[in-house]
Amino acid sequence: MFKIKIFSIGKTKETWLQQATEEYHKRIKNTIQVEWVLCKNDEQLLYTLEKESCWISLDPKGSLLSSEEFSTFLFSQLEEEGSRLNLVIGGAEGLPPGIRKKSKSLISLSKMTFTHQITRLILLEQLYRAMEIRKGSGYHK
Amino acid sequence: MFKIKIFSIGKTKETWLQQATEEYHKRIKNTIQVEWVLCKNDEQLLYTLEKESCWISLDPKGSLLSSEEFSTFLFSQLEEEGSRLNLVIGGAEGLPPGIRKKSKSLISLSKMTFTHQITRLILLEQLYRAMEIRKGSGYHK
Repeated sequence: MFKIKIFSIGKTKETWLQQATEEYHKRIKNTIQVEWVLCKNDEQLLYTLEKESCWISLDPKGSLLSSEEFSTFLFSQLEEEGSRLNLVIGGAEGLPPGIRKKSKSLISLSKMTFTHQITRLILLEQLYRAMEIRKGSGYHK
Repeated sequence: MFKIKIFSIGKTKETWLQQATEEYHKRIKNTIQVEWVLCKNDEQLLYTLEKESCWISLDPKGSLLSSEEFSTFLFSQLEEEGSRLNLVIGGAEGLPPGIRKKSKSLISLSKMTFTHQITRLILLEQLYRAMEIRKGSGYHK
């Protein structure tokens, strides 16, 4: 069992986002246990991450990966980090410099800017897709 | 008023997707009228597009644009095409070669592969974002 913590700012207020993320949680829960750590603001995010030794951040300047590359990257990181991984999504103003600088890696989902809500959904679906790519299932074509 | 038709395959069965897209429809309806043309399969998509003179397709090999570049591209295309534009999202197997080849342009939302459902949501949010970027509002930072 892999354990991934996703750190982000702001609650999931939108009903549609809750429904969509629940769907992917169900699909991955037997392989990856995802825990959301939702902070109020940058300060709380900084404080919470201080307790963690290592994290990977989603950042506009990060590497643009394909889903296959993300899958390889994800599972190599999980192997390096003893099956545990921390992923960080920045707030409306981007990542605080302290968090960005201390990141083990910076990755980017797209050159485009997405809302945090949509980013959460994309990230979760990419975790599921990464798992299916590794399995060699027909989900990812 | 701009008119954009989005051609895609498969119905919007997911409640969460309906809710999420309705939210963005509300936000853009005073500037952009979005019409979804949902086809059953590739054949129906080909048949439907035959009646259109011009379309832009979302394709993995398309140009990777930032949201700012997409905004500039979108409104220059709308200007060229008399305020009307057709956008095509491929099915599970990608775009049929006939549709891909006849596209005026190919664009890509990300190097990553997304589900059609998530692609629809991203595209709609990018249309809204493109509009806000053009207005110079604070939505896009």
